[in-house]
Amino acid sequence: MENFDFWCGTRIIFGRGTEKQAGEAVSMYGKTALLHYGGGSIKKWGLYDRVIKSLNEAGVKTVELGGVRPNPTYELIYEGIKLCREHSVDLILAVGGGSVIDSAKGIAVGAPYEGDVLDFTLKKAVAKEALPVGAILTLPAAGSESSQYAVATHEVDGYPYKRDVVWENFHLIRPKFAILNPELTCTLPPFQTACGICDIMAHVMERYFTSVKNVELTDRLSEAVLKTVINNGRVVMKEPENYDARAEIMWAGSVAHNDLLGTGRQPDFASHMIEHEISGIYDIAHGAGLAIIFPAWMKHVYKNNLDRFVQFAVRVWNVDHNFYSPEQTALEGIEKYEKFLKEIGLPTRLSEENIPADRFEEMAEKAMKPGSIKKMTAKDIVEIFKLAS
Amino acid sequence: MENFDFWCGTRIIFGRGTEKQAGEAVSMYGKTALLHYGGGSIKKWGLYDRVIKSLNEAGVKTVELGGVRPNPTYELIYEGIKLCREHSVDLILAVGGGSVIDSAKGIAVGAPYEGDVLDFTLKKAVAKEALPVGAILTLPAAGSESSQYAVATHEVDGYPYKRDVVWENFHLIRPKFAILNPELTCTLPPFQTACGICDIMAHVMERYFTSVKNVELTDRLSEAVLKTVINNGRVVMKEPENYDARAEIMWAGSVAHNDLLGTGRQPDFASHMIEHEISGIYDIAHGAGLAIIFPAWMKHVYKNNLDRFVQFAVRVWNVDHNFYSPEQTALEGIEKYEKFLKEIGLPTRLSEENIPADRFEEMAEKAMKPGSIKKMTAKDIVEIFKLAS
Repeated sequence: MENFDFWCGTRIIFGRGTEKQAGEAVSMYGKTALLHYGGGSIKKWGLYDRVIKSLNEAGVKTVELGGVRPNPTYELIYEGIKLCREHSVDLILAVGGGSVIDSAKGIAVGAPYEGDVLDFTLKKAVAKEALPVGAILTLPAAGSESSQYAVATHEVDGYPYKRDVVWENFHLIRPKFAILNPELTCTLPPFQTACGICDIMAHVMERYFTSVKNVELTDRLSEAVLKTVINNGRVVMKEPENYDARAEIMWAGSVAHNDLLGTGRQPDFASHMIEHEISGIYDIAHGAGLAIIFPAWMKHVYKNNLDRFVQFAVRVWNVDHNFYSPEQTALEGIEKYEKFLKEIGLPTRLSEENIPADRFEEMAEKAMKPGSIKKMTAKDIVEIFKLAS
Repeated sequence: MENFDFWCGTRIIFGRGTEKQAGEAVSMYGKTALLHYGGGSIKKWGLYDRVIKSLNEAGVKTVELGGVRPNPTYELIYEGIKLCREHSVDLILAVGGGSVIDSAKGIAVGAPYEGDVLDFTLKKAVAKEALPVGAILTLPAAGSESSQYAVATHEVDGYPYKRDVVWENFHLIRPKFAILNPELTCTLPPFQTACGICDIMAHVMERYFTSVKNVELTDRLSEAVLKTVINNGRVVMKEPENYDARAEIMWAGSVAHNDLLGTGRQPDFASHMIEHEISGIYDIAHGAGLAIIFPAWMKHVYKNNLDRFVQFAVRVWNVDHNFYSPEQTALEGIEKYEKFLKEIGLPTRLSEENIPADRFEEMAEKAMKPGSIKKMTAKDIVEIFKLAS
């Protein structure tokens, strides 16, 4: 086990009707909030009204900024920064999914900084302070509600770079609180639900697939999260309004990415980085992109740490270990994972999303290249794209 | 799953040599620390010197208060409160095990309070503020280093009440940071190691044994912690200096009691409350008391939620489920647990500790009486004492 520094202070307010606690949670940090959201869906189901009511009752004034789109960009972040300065905002309250929360995090580090917030992602400066962020989650997937990560897209010479908003002092952007009401997720369409499930599992697996040994506790905790998401994922695809199953997935989504499961180990994160190139360029949901890339990455790298893929097969997918052929066991695990993705309605090939091969080399070149199971090269990434075709 | 509010902000600084980061961690909260510890053991292995060096380098002044004994009392807490006021202490740095950290927590809520700190445990007042507490852990067991709980003993009419230091606003006493270096635990004697293992498992099981349904994520996370502690517990009893096994147990000990595993469910905590009466009166380690009480409690209550005890047997102890007799399966799980406790050298009967039956009724009467599997009565507790005899 490796040394680590784990500091997750996000308060989780979880359960039915908890959006009514927004006012109380926000008012611990001040009296003016920037209410940040996406399209109109939060107004459709009455969530917006309930949040505004709670904020009003707690004496919190709001400034609003809607319009965040999937794969958030810096245009809206700049607008949010301007609003925060003009109105002396004390906290940014993100109401939505990962894109909204990531956008809020960008605003949070940008607001108190005199220079261009892009300096942080371009590694020209290190963030030293940030406004506090709170979240009311509507889509369990990105885990951004209690994670210290945020991703936004900026263009250089026409290429969309989907990159981390900060590379140091990550803890500055970890939300102070997250309100998680599973009821809000019962109306999510099946495809979005499935994309969320895939993203949550990917966050666990990026950490699970490590070359660091003697990490039994986090291995077993990771397997616990994966099994729970698989079991309850199957339930919600059949019974979208099953509160308990939605609750399991929602809480699992936060635990999956708050870094508890990364303690003491080196994560891999190759699949996530490769996928960011795809959803940066093509109009594809991040979760769907992961469903295509992750199995291909597995097929490309499993021989680099066969034991780990055998463990994944046996412990997560209940594969009967073939002691004569561990490789067969490992492959059966990957197969079961891919079948599950199909079962919940996700694509597992680039061709299903009409993504052509013509930019494979370009994306492979531009992509970040981490890796614990196997340090990626551009050549590896092209191979993975081919396996995913 | 039930609604919950989970807020664990303790920063975990984990791994080899991490006590050298004490100065940096403390100085985030001020420049004067009360260094709180037990007997001389922290001086024996050089830990004291390394901590003082780190504090000095960070410009932190220290006031010292040693002498905490197992089952801490209020006398030393009063002394600590006095020192904090005299020296305008900014943070209390507990160096030791659960007793030292619990004592530090008592000092922390007492220092800023004008009245008697006992008011909080006697429910005459509610704590509103506290000094920050930091911990350098030397004995993985109590989980106090990242928990919001503390227990201390006060006497009334000659009876030692071992009770919670606060009953509300628990978050005030949760440590701001905890430094966990597994190397420091490699020299722990076998009996103390075993008591710690038993206490850690008990913290998980008190939450695991709930009557709340649809808590799959926390069930599986709990099973993950238990299996890890069992596996690595066996290793450290044979190889006391196995760093990785010590590390698994140390990190598991924090996760076991920071309340992650209690999210969405009602805990039981009957065994802990019953045990507090025993170690309050008799000279017995808390972990050894739990090894005696917990199996007896199980035998007394398992029929109240047979399914849960079957799950415990199958998932934690790998018992082959006897579908013809679930009761047999449940009993085999309890038996395996008790055998494990004996295997690591713990007593499982009161008689082994020469604890007589003459105060059973008195202890049963005085004990707190929680319970999720079965709400305890004095009669239940006497039965449990008899089963443990």
